[in-house]
Amino acid sequence: MHLPNLLTKRLLHLLGDHALLTDPADCLAYGYDNSRRQGRPAAVALPTEAGQVLELVRACREARVSITARGRGTATTGAAVPGENSLVVSFERMDQLVAIEPDDRLAVVQPGVLNGDLQQAAAAHGFFWAPDPTSAPYCTVGGNLACNAGGPRALKYGASRDNVLALAAVSGRGEAFRCGAATTKSAIGYDLARFLVGSEGTLALITEATLRLLPLPEARTGLRALYTDTAAAAAAVARIMAQPVTPSALEFMDGAALKLAREVGGADIGAGGALLMIEVDGRRDALADAGAAVSKAAHGQGLIELAASDDLDTLWQARRKLSPALRTLAPGKINEDVVVPVSRLPALISGLDALSARHGIPIVNFGHAGNGNIHVNLLHQPDDPRHVKAAPRCLADVFDLVLELGGTLSGEHGIGIDKRDFMARALDTESLALLHGIKAVFDPDGILNPGKLLPLSGLGTRDSGLGNARG
Amino acid sequence: MHLPNLLTKRLLHLLGDHALLTDPADCLAYGYDNSRRQGRPAAVALPTEAGQVLELVRACREARVSITARGRGTATTGAAVPGENSLVVSFERMDQLVAIEPDDRLAVVQPGVLNGDLQQAAAAHGFFWAPDPTSAPYCTVGGNLACNAGGPRALKYGASRDNVLALAAVSGRGEAFRCGAATTKSAIGYDLARFLVGSEGTLALITEATLRLLPLPEARTGLRALYTDTAAAAAAVARIMAQPVTPSALEFMDGAALKLAREVGGADIGAGGALLMIEVDGRRDALADAGAAVSKAAHGQGLIELAASDDLDTLWQARRKLSPALRTLAPGKINEDVVVPVSRLPALISGLDALSARHGIPIVNFGHAGNGNIHVNLLHQPDDPRHVKAAPRCLADVFDLVLELGGTLSGEHGIGIDKRDFMARALDTESLALLHGIKAVFDPDGILNPGKLLPLSGLGTRDSGLGNARG
Repeated sequence: MHLPNLLTKRLLHLLGDHALLTDPADCLAYGYDNSRRQGRPAAVALPTEAGQVLELVRACREARVSITARGRGTATTGAAVPGENSLVVSFERMDQLVAIEPDDRLAVVQPGVLNGDLQQAAAAHGFFWAPDPTSAPYCTVGGNLACNAGGPRALKYGASRDNVLALAAVSGRGEAFRCGAATTKSAIGYDLARFLVGSEGTLALITEATLRLLPLPEARTGLRALYTDTAAAAAAVARIMAQPVTPSALEFMDGAALKLAREVGGADIGAGGALLMIEVDGRRDALADAGAAVSKAAHGQGLIELAASDDLDTLWQARRKLSPALRTLAPGKINEDVVVPVSRLPALISGLDALSARHGIPIVNFGHAGNGNIHVNLLHQPDDPRHVKAAPRCLADVFDLVLELGGTLSGEHGIGIDKRDFMARALDTESLALLHGIKAVFDPDGILNPGKLLPLSGLGTRDSGLGNARG
Repeated sequence: MHLPNLLTKRLLHLLGDHALLTDPADCLAYGYDNSRRQGRPAAVALPTEAGQVLELVRACREARVSITARGRGTATTGAAVPGENSLVVSFERMDQLVAIEPDDRLAVVQPGVLNGDLQQAAAAHGFFWAPDPTSAPYCTVGGNLACNAGGPRALKYGASRDNVLALAAVSGRGEAFRCGAATTKSAIGYDLARFLVGSEGTLALITEATLRLLPLPEARTGLRALYTDTAAAAAAVARIMAQPVTPSALEFMDGAALKLAREVGGADIGAGGALLMIEVDGRRDALADAGAAVSKAAHGQGLIELAASDDLDTLWQARRKLSPALRTLAPGKINEDVVVPVSRLPALISGLDALSARHGIPIVNFGHAGNGNIHVNLLHQPDDPRHVKAAPRCLADVFDLVLELGGTLSGEHGIGIDKRDFMARALDTESLALLHGIKAVFDPDGILNPGKLLPLSGLGTRDSGLGNARG
């Protein structure tokens, strides 16, 4: 848990002693994320400019000390949790909003800018940045880019990868580079900028981002639709997504989540098997028509009740309370954010019900139905020995189910440590070999966030039938 | 211009003699593209299934024979023109539309499916695929993906990279892999699927693509706005892009293009310095409002005339005739598709005017103004010795101008051979090193489309001030 002395001296010289934390007590606060894992970094660097980031990567590479980049630690996967003897590079002091260019619909930011602060600044010009994770007020743009964060409105506007134009970064080779362009169109070969998005700090440290802004809609309207069961709600989702008005949000709650929203969140909703919360945005004078088109699509077999919801905020608040409420109910809650093709939602939910019964672990589901991106919550009680034994098996079965349905392991949380060993189930042998090869190009000495995202070994893939690699 | 005998035997065994062309006369038709370069392939393979593609890449890798993948040869950059002793792999017989899944808003296609055929099939289900290059009726989806093709409606709906979900491919290592997922959201690390888009056949051969479909709009309406000069039109573009209704097309013609559209294309337009052709699509009952919002934004200083254009098709036809008309005027026409931030359009056009005057070469500009993506046409007369000398210098100055304005070399045509040597001006040393490293991971023996896209040497970058690398 100490840096080599020479490296410490070099970093102190580079950063100054107010920007290098070495006291274990100070460092501890930089060792966790929302996965509730806790690492113990050897030190924490707090750079204020890109030149310092470049020099510290060079110094760490020479000293063979690994680096974990950090926004505000809101990731749920352990991606921001450092290994032993690692240097955490926190971008909290690189929080400058460099520019907002309304004519070019873009913003230039340092990675430590909070998503919420960017939204406020952009709104003053009539714009927004699409990613809207629940943690928006206190998560950073750099962290959003690292894990390809999304949110409800990704359905209409895309996630982080879809809304980045250009990046400045420092590779694990200790070299600075710029990629992408401040334009919405580019066809000059391999797209490094979008490739870095979602790479969880394993390829390069982002020092500046040029982001695509979108014009704020004039108005929003809401609908809530209650169905007898999940299959009826899923069929409605498919109907809604097949007509031309794409909602700005199309959120799903299963029966258990619905009950919880009512009982814990205080939402005023009738009893039913599944709920859709639908938001439509756009021009004020076109909104009634757009809402009617979506409403028509929401109608169908199994609909109990469909109501325009002027008080959408209350419903959203109930929705936002679900995640913390579930943690209160089950302190060991495992929250995954799997994705399946929209048509497979009924099969996913019924499959999850079967797994819940088989393993004896309650599962509550809600999430971004329009993308097939469902937050699957295993209500794991850590002090119940049956749960402790059953939970990992149940989780593995959840991922197998998702992959069987043509889906993917994560829609917006990323992989980190928690899902790393399942990557070998999700990807074939050649893809894994290519990923490891690319990692070695960017980071030949493996100093950038080692042990995250990529399975520790390329062996043991879905194709080879060897099960998942655990190192 | 011959394959090694052993390889020919192996390919004949694999493909059958009706699917391997070796007669130079037969092969010649597979050696050109719309750059009007002509290569002489050693042979042409016409596989019908992914397994054959896998085996032929393995056979070529063992024999160290290079492969150039081919759609229908409509690229303008030489990307599909094979080098000497190369095998062309034409995907014309892998033209199956595997599936259209309306509930999941996706299509699964083999790479040889024509863009236009896909559009027809998707339209029967009420959907479309966003890329709409002028060559749509006779270019392939595989070719679109290879060069990240766009078109006018990329402004609202994105280009090829933005509309691909998953790919099956064979790497230059001679291994098959699948990447991406049939879902609109994914956060499982490095995004290989989108990375392959735009790679011009230098990393892998795509054998199947899962494409994101979008619901067809109910209706379209058009506006044409005539301005006194380019600066006035560019200011209108910025105003239009800053309000919430994103047009489905926002096309620009400068004064010279306008004159040509009138005289050659037969368009009924008044005299002016610049024209915007604006298309808005959406729900029928919301269209008038949306059109009014765009119309309001189009108004401003320098507007001569703004008219709703019911007969948008005539105007589009005039627009489509521009490119061939320019070739008639100047048989050596050099057509680039540079991009600048929208706010820099006036500086681009005035800079191009200055270059035209300095080098004595007429330049005509039109294109996708909403993206800042302008087709810059150097009317080069190959039998005028002054032109022959001045054209390459003028072209280099055009690219320097674009890069100075924060733009990029290509918006939708790609790099190929024609712009390869300018890549070292556009990218910094580290980016080039990373690109070369990644190429070596996918294609360690350099058999996939060598000499395209990447500059032949990593030396001579913009940063080093050595000018462009020419090998």
